[in-house]
Amino acid sequence: MAATREHEAMSALLALIASGRAVTRTELAAVCGLSRSTVTQRVNRLLDAGLAVEHGSGASEGGRPPTVLALAPGSGVLLAADLGATHARLAVAGLGGEILAESSEDLVIDHGPDRVLGRVRDGWHGLLASLDRGARDVRGIGIGVPGPVEFSTGTVVRPPIMAGWDGFRVPAFFADHRAVPILVDNDVNLMALGEHRGSRAAEDSLLYIKIGTGIGCGTVTAGRLYRGSAGAAGDIGHIRLPGHEQVVCHCGNTGCVEAVASGAALVRSLRAGGLDVATARDVARLAVDGNTAARRALRVAAQQIGEILAAVVSFHNPGCILIGGAFTALGDEVLAEIKAVVYSRVLPLATRNLRIEAGPLGDRAAIVGAIALAQEHALAPGALVRLFG
Amino acid sequence: MAATREHEAMSALLALIASGRAVTRTELAAVCGLSRSTVTQRVNRLLDAGLAVEHGSGASEGGRPPTVLALAPGSGVLLAADLGATHARLAVAGLGGEILAESSEDLVIDHGPDRVLGRVRDGWHGLLASLDRGARDVRGIGIGVPGPVEFSTGTVVRPPIMAGWDGFRVPAFFADHRAVPILVDNDVNLMALGEHRGSRAAEDSLLYIKIGTGIGCGTVTAGRLYRGSAGAAGDIGHIRLPGHEQVVCHCGNTGCVEAVASGAALVRSLRAGGLDVATARDVARLAVDGNTAARRALRVAAQQIGEILAAVVSFHNPGCILIGGAFTALGDEVLAEIKAVVYSRVLPLATRNLRIEAGPLGDRAAIVGAIALAQEHALAPGALVRLFG
Repeated sequence: MAATREHEAMSALLALIASGRAVTRTELAAVCGLSRSTVTQRVNRLLDAGLAVEHGSGASEGGRPPTVLALAPGSGVLLAADLGATHARLAVAGLGGEILAESSEDLVIDHGPDRVLGRVRDGWHGLLASLDRGARDVRGIGIGVPGPVEFSTGTVVRPPIMAGWDGFRVPAFFADHRAVPILVDNDVNLMALGEHRGSRAAEDSLLYIKIGTGIGCGTVTAGRLYRGSAGAAGDIGHIRLPGHEQVVCHCGNTGCVEAVASGAALVRSLRAGGLDVATARDVARLAVDGNTAARRALRVAAQQIGEILAAVVSFHNPGCILIGGAFTALGDEVLAEIKAVVYSRVLPLATRNLRIEAGPLGDRAAIVGAIALAQEHALAPGALVRLFG
Repeated sequence: MAATREHEAMSALLALIASGRAVTRTELAAVCGLSRSTVTQRVNRLLDAGLAVEHGSGASEGGRPPTVLALAPGSGVLLAADLGATHARLAVAGLGGEILAESSEDLVIDHGPDRVLGRVRDGWHGLLASLDRGARDVRGIGIGVPGPVEFSTGTVVRPPIMAGWDGFRVPAFFADHRAVPILVDNDVNLMALGEHRGSRAAEDSLLYIKIGTGIGCGTVTAGRLYRGSAGAAGDIGHIRLPGHEQVVCHCGNTGCVEAVASGAALVRSLRAGGLDVATARDVARLAVDGNTAARRALRVAAQQIGEILAAVVSFHNPGCILIGGAFTALGDEVLAEIKAVVYSRVLPLATRNLRIEAGPLGDRAAIVGAIALAQEHALAPGALVRLFG
């Protein structure tokens, strides 16, 4: 059965209540441009279905204080996973997005989808059990992976890392949850979404740049994740860096910034120089500990990434760029190099209001984004069709 | 007086009627999610005010055919101007966007705002008179200029050409029309908007690249012009082109693509080679006439611009790039060079659905965009406050 206008209207009410933008019947009527009676009728359906509850009272301008609505704590939960190359973070959240339980574990993505997703499923079961919840309470699932994803189907597409995952359709693994929306996206998109949701005061647009083993970018425009026409937006790791035409990238082209300035590239060049490093985090750790070669390599890489960001800023004129990933261990030193190049290369008008900062959520950005994605779809009209018929 | 929800609702109805997306009361009710009686009441206000008219009848599924609504031909007109470096195009259009009268003349932008805008005002008066209309019929004005504009105030900001215009607030010139919205934007933004509105079948996002004296880009995303956080989006002319660090740009930096591959750059290099050219159009004409040096220069420039577009495509993943400006005189030859570089430099996923074509509206794109901008604001809630109080 398809979603009707009634489902859409109830979904809009739930999203407003969940975000806190409108929590009384009067506020909901004003924001939606609907009559008070129409809103009341729809709110009653949400209350009857156990999705929303009334509690406390809101601000009043005299007279009886209005009743405040909230998503029902018992109305269901969201599952979220942030999968990295060697690590996973799992969470169970309420429909309002608040985290109820969380865990974190080492997990090798190259062990392939069956082993990795089996661990994720078991982890979620454990977290649900600790909350006295079960599979029937789950209303939506959000999963981030360290590689490109065809978002509409949740299929991993030609990942540079993630051995054994190419072409794997992640939602198909979770047979227990066939009836709920299961959304899969690449980690940097979820980081951008997570930082956007996490910082209510921030502007409605931002770029999130992750500098780790690879280099990627997530874009939020006008409050929404921008994926581009084929879901490939933000693929800045393969923009050509001037002056490095001799360096071959794993994509087959030459001179890509990822082949020169990513964590993987720094590991290669520092190992060639005799240092014992295996990951981007190792490089960052060495630099923090004061190793001159590692420190210098990070600073040069930051300048090179700044070159690419200058091109992005000239085209896109963002108001806010957040930087995350292993490189940010060096903090201000890396940010200063990036900023110096961007400010010197871009016309003043485009940098007048530009903030370049470390992502405030740090390595929690992706799990917050995964919850936000699951929430958005759990409250969408299509999901309500299953509840209301 | 501020716009109320009622003004917003009537504005939305007018925009739907103007675009043809919904033209009967039943369609309007369905699209807006409003009751038939609410829509009828608002439509009656629009009919009473002379903004809309009823005519003909729409498709019927049995029973009495529904009445079709349209914007009233007598309900007002829009003025539009597209100012180039040496040329201006003027138009008067109906509120529905249809062009009623149009003119075109040589006009030197460097003569400064008073002379140039005086000519524009006189031209509009002439066109209005030919239609038996006057200043009181004007509901909105859209103007495109060949330089950067602070959109919120219509102020020209540090234009590379346009002598005498820096800091000039264009709307202030038109004292006759103080009561109507006067929108000013740079020409390439209007070209993007014009192509988007002109091609109803096309996708809702596109990039428009103008290659003339300078190099600029206009971006439509999700059906709307994207201006960036400070109105500087699309400034791709100052992205650094690999391998040209010795070339100084008028912006003060080195190696900008505009300093190497724009019409102005080609004029300089061809004149140094003894050719008699003064403008980008001269270069294009020579190339079309078969001059080998001009042809070769254009092809190399197209490859260089392709390099920059490859970076833009990696970041933005657009579905459609339209190319306009003097360089397109050489047609497929220029397009083929651009495409070859973009397809070879960008990962396959991002180019899978990508069309790169000449803008179908040609040199009419900006005037169509200026009309669209004026229309959008003439039908906006704020404009209706003046009509309805």
